[in-house]
Amino acid sequence: MTPASGAGTGILKIGCPDARGIVAAVSGFLAGHGANIVDAQQHTDKSDDAFFMRVEFELAGMDIAQADVVPALQLVADRFGMNWGISWSDRIPVVGIMVSQLEHCLIDLLARHRMGELQVRIPIIISNHAELASIAAAFGIPFACIPVTAGEKEAAEARAIEILKKANCDLVVLARYMQILSPTFLSAYPMRIINIHHGFLPAFAGARAYNQAHERGVKLIGATSYYVTDILDDGPIIQDVIRVSHRDSVEDLVRKGRDLERLVLARAVRAHVEDRIVVHGTRTVVFE
Amino acid sequence: MTPASGAGTGILKIGCPDARGIVAAVSGFLAGHGANIVDAQQHTDKSDDAFFMRVEFELAGMDIAQADVVPALQLVADRFGMNWGISWSDRIPVVGIMVSQLEHCLIDLLARHRMGELQVRIPIIISNHAELASIAAAFGIPFACIPVTAGEKEAAEARAIEILKKANCDLVVLARYMQILSPTFLSAYPMRIINIHHGFLPAFAGARAYNQAHERGVKLIGATSYYVTDILDDGPIIQDVIRVSHRDSVEDLVRKGRDLERLVLARAVRAHVEDRIVVHGTRTVVFE
Amino acid sequence: MTPASGAGTGILKIGCPDARGIVAAVSGFLAGHGANIVDAQQHTDKSDDAFFMRVEFELAGMDIAQADVVPALQLVADRFGMNWGISWSDRIPVVGIMVSQLEHCLIDLLARHRMGELQVRIPIIISNHAELASIAAAFGIPFACIPVTAGEKEAAEARAIEILKKANCDLVVLARYMQILSPTFLSAYPMRIINIHHGFLPAFAGARAYNQAHERGVKLIGATSYYVTDILDDGPIIQDVIRVSHRDSVEDLVRKGRDLERLVLARAVRAHVEDRIVVHGTRTVVFE
Amino acid sequence: MTPASGAGTGILKIGCPDARGIVAAVSGFLAGHGANIVDAQQHTDKSDDAFFMRVEFELAGMDIAQADVVPALQLVADRFGMNWGISWSDRIPVVGIMVSQLEHCLIDLLARHRMGELQVRIPIIISNHAELASIAAAFGIPFACIPVTAGEKEAAEARAIEILKKANCDLVVLARYMQILSPTFLSAYPMRIINIHHGFLPAFAGARAYNQAHERGVKLIGATSYYVTDILDDGPIIQDVIRVSHRDSVEDLVRKGRDLERLVLARAVRAHVEDRIVVHGTRTVVFE
Repeated sequence: MTPASGAGTGILKIGCPDARGIVAAVSGFLAGHGANIVDAQQHTDKSDDAFFMRVEFELAGMDIAQADVVPALQLVADRFGMNWGISWSDRIPVVGIMVSQLEHCLIDLLARHRMGELQVRIPIIISNHAELASIAAAFGIPFACIPVTAGEKEAAEARAIEILKKANCDLVVLARYMQILSPTFLSAYPMRIINIHHGFLPAFAGARAYNQAHERGVKLIGATSYYVTDILDDGPIIQDVIRVSHRDSVEDLVRKGRDLERLVLARAVRAHVEDRIVVHGTRTVVFE
Repeated sequence: MTPASGAGTGILKIGCPDARGIVAAVSGFLAGHGANIVDAQQHTDKSDDAFFMRVEFELAGMDIAQADVVPALQLVADRFGMNWGISWSDRIPVVGIMVSQLEHCLIDLLARHRMGELQVRIPIIISNHAELASIAAAFGIPFACIPVTAGEKEAAEARAIEILKKANCDLVVLARYMQILSPTFLSAYPMRIINIHHGFLPAFAGARAYNQAHERGVKLIGATSYYVTDILDDGPIIQDVIRVSHRDSVEDLVRKGRDLERLVLARAVRAHVEDRIVVHGTRTVVFE
Repeated sequence: MTPASGAGTGILKIGCPDARGIVAAVSGFLAGHGANIVDAQQHTDKSDDAFFMRVEFELAGMDIAQADVVPALQLVADRFGMNWGISWSDRIPVVGIMVSQLEHCLIDLLARHRMGELQVRIPIIISNHAELASIAAAFGIPFACIPVTAGEKEAAEARAIEILKKANCDLVVLARYMQILSPTFLSAYPMRIINIHHGFLPAFAGARAYNQAHERGVKLIGATSYYVTDILDDGPIIQDVIRVSHRDSVEDLVRKGRDLERLVLARAVRAHVEDRIVVHGTRTVVFE
Repeated sequence: MTPASGAGTGILKIGCPDARGIVAAVSGFLAGHGANIVDAQQHTDKSDDAFFMRVEFELAGMDIAQADVVPALQLVADRFGMNWGISWSDRIPVVGIMVSQLEHCLIDLLARHRMGELQVRIPIIISNHAELASIAAAFGIPFACIPVTAGEKEAAEARAIEILKKANCDLVVLARYMQILSPTFLSAYPMRIINIHHGFLPAFAGARAYNQAHERGVKLIGATSYYVTDILDDGPIIQDVIRVSHRDSVEDLVRKGRDLERLVLARAVRAHVEDRIVVHGTRTVVFE
């Protein structure tokens, strides 16, 4: 049998009804083919008897070729009714970024990318405004300005999808993109569009989140990143908060919130591109 | 003029429309009478031009008697249209605690009281259940069991108020008291009843807060303490959160939430009895 | 073969040099005997190629008796040179508490025990002072006062060990016990004595931790719980901090630190009694 | 008398031995000249009877000219033996940044500057390496590369000081500048050089802070910003931490630490340029 090539790893993600012997079947399969398991995590959601697993294993030393792993694993998956997928470390995620006029999340992602923190390729930044073109240029990323005017939204979205697809993007990050995407757009990237909301969901949805928080007199503000679905501000992945006080004006909340948004979005993108997220209904399992 | 007696302090709290010269008028008044200012904090809410101030000053050395401070200050207060009040450190706050069956907040408050952290007198614990009588006994606090049965709520509340008033309570702390209080009860202690809610308000109000948080898949849970008003779970004072993950069941949320509730409630009670809270409409100013 | 009895679980903890096939061997063994794996976590420390694993499995359905699991697993363990151990959920941990005069950690542990958060048996509280006898009595726990006087420390320790052993304690929690234990005492409970230190180790070791923190002007304080060893304040398990400011006096640091100490100690004790800690040289692996 | 011009504010900072009447004297002086106090904060350090105050007041409406405020206030200051200073909002702080090869703090400061969060002028970035010239160019800031070679350190420092002075810098921010500055350099900017240290001081000083933290097995890492003095890693202003676990390698600590360093440094610079810091011996008072 042709040995698997390369020094890379495979990441296997599984979701299925809980059952006896899943861990043994998966790890037995991998060990039986000579794979070294680098990391394994599992989680059982007792409220609905669902089982989740993430296994990272080395290709080097395996007695089957990389291309043969998927069909062989399918036999195991069928036994347990698994939703599953595998990704290979030799495949770099390709991320398209969409942004409007606020630059803090964009700069943060580009800086992390430049420092090697985000192991992705970023072939394109799309904006409905022209202001941030210079930021894109400073970091050497192509920039496409697609204004979204009344009555022309459908055409604008079609053009954005065309650019994203042509650039082979497999993830779209909305780094403070202030347009609501249509179901058509969403269906082009199902569970592959990450948004950052400037509020602690589900408390303050919509565009005036900081104003609402200030009016209500809360002592903490939040930021939430989530996979975009048809419902506004639904599907959280990561949430975080920062302490505020009565001294903070709405402007202070906005400034403190920016720090939070950047961190929360960066963590969400990292978790996604490192294949650590399993979506389970309206919730997510985020392995560490 | 009779000099002020005692080595204690007075705490002056002020809320009024912002204006020129308030700080100078107040500090000039105090300095003019020989008072030493121990602490002074102010806050201006620019969204509605409201001014808040808290000044703590020593009585020793003043050239007027403690009883004469209030009428003299009233002249200053009238100039600026102040809502104001003064409290004296020789007056120990008297706190009545109401609780149902969950003991964690009660034990926490009693333990802090025993250690001298809460400088208050606790003359009575009222419960609609009998279970926690032994806790009260262990800490040497009288315990009154007033069951709340269908159709008898009015009578039960009347009896509770009678006991609280007889014990001279000036603050009521609901340490996980699971009955909604009537407007009649609330009017007996306006802005003097502190509740702890087991959720991050305004996201998850009501009794099933942890279940709602789990169903929604949030990654943080909260606890909120607030002054009770006619509207359910309104009027936050302090909020805090603790990180949770997909691994946490509802039971885990409840357990982690308990730690949070105790801290949040204890901080709120401390802030109140140390006269650091000024209520401003639906919001609060909490001086540190 | 006699089937395993009971509806309980076993918790297997493993530490060994990293190698190919460990996960498969362990999960294969368990699956081969019909065990359902409830939870499995692993960790590889790449800095020294060490592998750690924690597996919780159900006894019900296994084809070998509980008593036969250990010798059967020893064969697997020998192949990989494992340090390993197994504990059974039908065995309730027995915890002895030692305390001096500060009550906050003691009350916290006893309250958590009363609420069912700490699934342990607490047969004895030992103190070198008499003050906290009433707390012990309030929670219904036997209390032994063993004063430690100059020149009599050896005898006092011998008596404490005798009491702890007689009560079958397998863990000793120092809930602010202000005596340094001798090597002889430590050897009676190796890696089975948990202490709480009122500072962020390794920054501020020793008794004056809060004073040192205040003098140095730090903006955060910490509390550290760890397994006691021969070296003062060594071997951390859990650390946490709380924000402080220039406004905080040493007394404020002490009060805020108390909240922290209780939480940190309670988490450490929980992690230990739930068999989630593997000691690895001077460090620990704490599974979640 | 010439009225004070402009709509700006003055910020008065005071440190002196505690005494009766300081607040009244200062606020009386300001009110007497028609100034509106926008914000006032005070702090008394009881451990050494030191008093600190920060007052921000509007120039508009004052009956003396801006230039006359200082000599008039000196009379008040002399009565109480104050160390004091005043700054005017029409004077924009001028900040020079020094950096070596790590870009995360530099990008963060430049991005905040671009967004208007940091109300300063940044006329120059100095580096002992050439790598980050493109970052400086992207944000439109002049960049001077001054290599520091063995035996040439004195000349390099002299040249850096010359550039900083010529650009009128009144603050120097070391955004991960990896050279130790000589006492001569420090004396050119006493208490005007802010550094960020990648560790929780005083626990882990020096260059290998993350490695030390990992070896010791701590569960939290820190970052500390402080005014640079002759003693290595002394004089903290702001500290913060982030939770880590046994899963984190040294590389993970470095990555998480970067997020922290940026926040901590940005907060310290903001506090300085907003005149909210009073140095008091080895400690600081940081008004909020």
